[in-house]
Amino acid sequence: MVVILNNNATETDTNMLKEYLDAYNVEVRETKGSTMTILGLVGDTLSVDVDSLRAMPFVDDVKRIQEPYKAANRKFHPDPTVVDVNGVKIGGGNFQVIAGPCSVETEEQIIEVAKDVKASGATLLRGGAFKPRTSPYAFQGLRANGLELLLEAKAATGMPIVTEIMSAAHLPLFKDVDVIQVGARNMQNFELLKMLGKQDKPILLKRGLANTIEELLMSAEYIMSEGNQNIILCERGIRTFETATRNTLDLSAIVVLKEKTHLPVVIDPSHATGVASYVPQMAIAAVAAGADGLIIEVHNDPAKALCDGPQSLTPVQFDNTMKKITKLRNFMVTELAN
Amino acid sequence: MVVILNNNATETDTNMLKEYLDAYNVEVRETKGSTMTILGLVGDTLSVDVDSLRAMPFVDDVKRIQEPYKAANRKFHPDPTVVDVNGVKIGGGNFQVIAGPCSVETEEQIIEVAKDVKASGATLLRGGAFKPRTSPYAFQGLRANGLELLLEAKAATGMPIVTEIMSAAHLPLFKDVDVIQVGARNMQNFELLKMLGKQDKPILLKRGLANTIEELLMSAEYIMSEGNQNIILCERGIRTFETATRNTLDLSAIVVLKEKTHLPVVIDPSHATGVASYVPQMAIAAVAAGADGLIIEVHNDPAKALCDGPQSLTPVQFDNTMKKITKLRNFMVTELAN
Amino acid sequence: MVVILNNNATETDTNMLKEYLDAYNVEVRETKGSTMTILGLVGDTLSVDVDSLRAMPFVDDVKRIQEPYKAANRKFHPDPTVVDVNGVKIGGGNFQVIAGPCSVETEEQIIEVAKDVKASGATLLRGGAFKPRTSPYAFQGLRANGLELLLEAKAATGMPIVTEIMSAAHLPLFKDVDVIQVGARNMQNFELLKMLGKQDKPILLKRGLANTIEELLMSAEYIMSEGNQNIILCERGIRTFETATRNTLDLSAIVVLKEKTHLPVVIDPSHATGVASYVPQMAIAAVAAGADGLIIEVHNDPAKALCDGPQSLTPVQFDNTMKKITKLRNFMVTELAN
Amino acid sequence: MVVILNNNATETDTNMLKEYLDAYNVEVRETKGSTMTILGLVGDTLSVDVDSLRAMPFVDDVKRIQEPYKAANRKFHPDPTVVDVNGVKIGGGNFQVIAGPCSVETEEQIIEVAKDVKASGATLLRGGAFKPRTSPYAFQGLRANGLELLLEAKAATGMPIVTEIMSAAHLPLFKDVDVIQVGARNMQNFELLKMLGKQDKPILLKRGLANTIEELLMSAEYIMSEGNQNIILCERGIRTFETATRNTLDLSAIVVLKEKTHLPVVIDPSHATGVASYVPQMAIAAVAAGADGLIIEVHNDPAKALCDGPQSLTPVQFDNTMKKITKLRNFMVTELAN
Repeated sequence: MVVILNNNATETDTNMLKEYLDAYNVEVRETKGSTMTILGLVGDTLSVDVDSLRAMPFVDDVKRIQEPYKAANRKFHPDPTVVDVNGVKIGGGNFQVIAGPCSVETEEQIIEVAKDVKASGATLLRGGAFKPRTSPYAFQGLRANGLELLLEAKAATGMPIVTEIMSAAHLPLFKDVDVIQVGARNMQNFELLKMLGKQDKPILLKRGLANTIEELLMSAEYIMSEGNQNIILCERGIRTFETATRNTLDLSAIVVLKEKTHLPVVIDPSHATGVASYVPQMAIAAVAAGADGLIIEVHNDPAKALCDGPQSLTPVQFDNTMKKITKLRNFMVTELAN
Repeated sequence: MVVILNNNATETDTNMLKEYLDAYNVEVRETKGSTMTILGLVGDTLSVDVDSLRAMPFVDDVKRIQEPYKAANRKFHPDPTVVDVNGVKIGGGNFQVIAGPCSVETEEQIIEVAKDVKASGATLLRGGAFKPRTSPYAFQGLRANGLELLLEAKAATGMPIVTEIMSAAHLPLFKDVDVIQVGARNMQNFELLKMLGKQDKPILLKRGLANTIEELLMSAEYIMSEGNQNIILCERGIRTFETATRNTLDLSAIVVLKEKTHLPVVIDPSHATGVASYVPQMAIAAVAAGADGLIIEVHNDPAKALCDGPQSLTPVQFDNTMKKITKLRNFMVTELAN
Repeated sequence: MVVILNNNATETDTNMLKEYLDAYNVEVRETKGSTMTILGLVGDTLSVDVDSLRAMPFVDDVKRIQEPYKAANRKFHPDPTVVDVNGVKIGGGNFQVIAGPCSVETEEQIIEVAKDVKASGATLLRGGAFKPRTSPYAFQGLRANGLELLLEAKAATGMPIVTEIMSAAHLPLFKDVDVIQVGARNMQNFELLKMLGKQDKPILLKRGLANTIEELLMSAEYIMSEGNQNIILCERGIRTFETATRNTLDLSAIVVLKEKTHLPVVIDPSHATGVASYVPQMAIAAVAAGADGLIIEVHNDPAKALCDGPQSLTPVQFDNTMKKITKLRNFMVTELAN
Repeated sequence: MVVILNNNATETDTNMLKEYLDAYNVEVRETKGSTMTILGLVGDTLSVDVDSLRAMPFVDDVKRIQEPYKAANRKFHPDPTVVDVNGVKIGGGNFQVIAGPCSVETEEQIIEVAKDVKASGATLLRGGAFKPRTSPYAFQGLRANGLELLLEAKAATGMPIVTEIMSAAHLPLFKDVDVIQVGARNMQNFELLKMLGKQDKPILLKRGLANTIEELLMSAEYIMSEGNQNIILCERGIRTFETATRNTLDLSAIVVLKEKTHLPVVIDPSHATGVASYVPQMAIAAVAAGADGLIIEVHNDPAKALCDGPQSLTPVQFDNTMKKITKLRNFMVTELAN
């Protein structure tokens, strides 16, 4: 951390500050220029509050140098995390495709889609039971019943299931769920994150619509600091001024995350683009960018889907996409690895 | 709602669509051009799912015409809502200032600040007990203890209190709180919104960092559709590319909201700017823009604040600001009203 | 400037870097920690290229501390600049309203509007002759003829005129124009800025749709470094995800600019909101926020305007707005000045 | 186009509007509902001004249905455009890599880099002579001398050259340049676009930092409507709130553009990410997403580059990247084509 003092800072101020930092076991190295004084802070500055320093009247600015996350930091954990979901591994060279409908609607629908996506090569089944919808008048999901139907589909196909949680109060309902998803709108629902850190099911943590990559890692840190280290990060598009796509898919987040963290990264091209015809090509691009997996919406009858129909692939479209993804993934591993 | 069919749409498609819309009691009026067909939907289209229509293979685009909110809509409720907080009224010409520290820290601190801001003219006391922080290593608030200290400050000063809730599970702790605040990061925590709609305390609903004005109204609609009509909307800055301020304060949200809804609107210049020296002038601008109130962070010793020190006013700065705000508000009412 | 070296930096690297910086007369002060070395650069670092430092393989990061602009910097020029336009002064306590149509259309139109806005208290006349339009099929302005009509309106009313330039090649046509406007889309048309710096007419420099406040000041610096110090900055809304307004008006830019620069700042609520009914209230808020002036679109028949009709006030609406603005400005000066 | 009338619209209003639209040869089809009237406009609505309609007091909203561009529209020109640069073809299945330094610095530098990138498989040479820099104190390029050095490199290697123009006044200097680049900051410099439309050299048109895909196509339309049809579109990252990368690379722009237009699309991963170590993977992802080409910054000594060093690859890094790109491109064509 670097603290820049303004011209009005007196020696008393500097001493006061040094004393304050002493309490954190942080050493201060001073650099005096003609128009400013720079203090370099050396030691474990993670718990030093940048805002408190900035609020001191003789401080001009504070610049952080070290990342504010530890458990998620690749510097301290160079080996990639492999998340094991009932034997299905993600990360560290293991690539998986999660597929299924936006929301669970009926027993027939979820079982049919589950069988279809399994046949095409998906290894995890997604499906929403609790649905975060912008409008209170839109379909809110089958909730507890939806979870039951998902479990039936799991029984019928043997696929582990991934589904979204919207409140810590629902945790008991998730006891047979394999991966708990935290949606974009709850990425900074810190009370929920803490509760999820206290249990040990893997978490699929989606990046918020307006959240930086660093904030995504801080939210992972919330979960990890409570104990649970099984986190899969998910980029699903961020909100920008562009309207041709539902969100703007930030594929460069993959390379940034691979540099900063050891956690696996999956891409959701369905929510990112919002348009079914754009999904296959962006899924392919995500594989090429180095994603550890994909999460794709598939519906047996998109026009009758109760949610997100326009971005859902049909089973046939998904099958075609899976063929390409599988080929490309093999090619990446065998031909393009360094 | 307007549905644009593409060139491939057949008469069978159009008939299928008309039948589908019949179920919603929505009438279809057709306009045929050489390169497209436009369907105008007439009736209560609120429950028609735009996404389902868009997913139909013969549909090119769907454009909504009516606002997707009802209870919050000024068209249906032209009179301004006045929220009554234990006799302190906001909205419909009633202007109030909510002030206090970012977080409750000690009994002395909160009571001292409460007395100070009351003396300067604030009518509601704010103070965070449950604190949403980006980092799990940052001060998380005094939680239940913080609420108790707030209640002591309420007892000592007679000021109603406003404080943030982070989980519906904490609701029982809020039984003596006067206004429950939903923070920007929870604006689309729909499960929380529903629970808050089922109780009757007034809600201060903050706009999310990346949420449109329409989405803010849809979140209000979540609360209102469950019963609770006592909502105060709050603009607190949105996330943009600009870094000179913590967020970008969108004061035009006031005029847009005044046109679209009957709910009162307050402005938070502290979180919007993130810089104490910018707060007074933006508070003044907010009054001129027609805000029904302000929420301002005040701390007796910002440099030692456990949270958001750089954006907190000292009691002296706040007092100076209140004098200007009060003068300006009186001027607006007496001299600038139409 | 602060340079953070990574762990791989050797003494040879540090020495190489010190030598490199020696050439700029910049001194280096070293702070060694266990995991990193921080170099504080002391001296005139304005010409040191941050990017070159960042590209060195042993450099982790570079953080600038001083503002990268000099001529526009209030630190070096504490007194506010007063721009004198043929006797009409803006800045340093002088407040002016620039008004007129989006584009000059006919002799009758521009003279009628000019007389109207003058009668209401506007002191400068705006009107577009060269029009930047997103579509090549939209009205592109009357160009040279438009300038002639503007000059007729100037002759008829005695008002100095403000109009936009789109290419340095047109400069000879602007010899009788009083203030040359650089539009948002040309804020970083650096060749144009340099040419405008070499002549001495005042420049109204609009902030680009996606440009930071610092970039706006750097563009002013382009003009000033060539000689011309007569610059009026203009905030006209930035591009965000919000769609209820054409752009998002960033009124906090006023307080930031007042802190950083001595140049006057005017606000354009017409382009910012894009909606005539929102303009008056945002004009009022801009005055309260401390603007040195306003630029407002007025058209005698908005529904027939060849450009930007929806955001144009009628002369009657403008007159009503001017009455309020004038009252408020007087109140601000007499009652709310510190 | 669809025009929504508000409740206050009278029959006289509707008739007035129909007459107005008659002048454009646009037919009006009316749909009356209980709370609104919808007018469907049928015919060539390209020249109808949306803003004028919106400004009419009885009009609530106007929604465009057809794309506002013609020449660039794939609907009217289904076959992909192949731009031929002295025998080097881009588009319609022809993939090319443009490489070279951010700026031309010396004869040795540009010739050395040119030979290097040619040896690695690049087919066009890039190099900046006129440099748009945020700061007037930064290196502005060698300008006319830089163009001469580029032409020497062209003579030495036989590679066609691509370089940026910053003012139409410089056009005569570009007579031996092969592709004229319009930079992001000039994407809406409409006077420049018109001049470039009147000559016949191919144009590389970069998307602006805050411009939508539709606006990019409208800028292409400016050039095409003046005659020049040889346009290569370039996505180079857009400005968002994320700071881990210089810009946010919008790879989904490729699939959107492929749907909307017949023009070739190239990707610039160097400016998009701003970080050399991120460039190779994003180049690979761009190929997988279906780009027709890449433009990559390469410098023989990035740490001494006068511009954009941190994002420049060394010739060795570029060579390694080219090997992967070439393999992947072949794989895409032979194995992943439909």
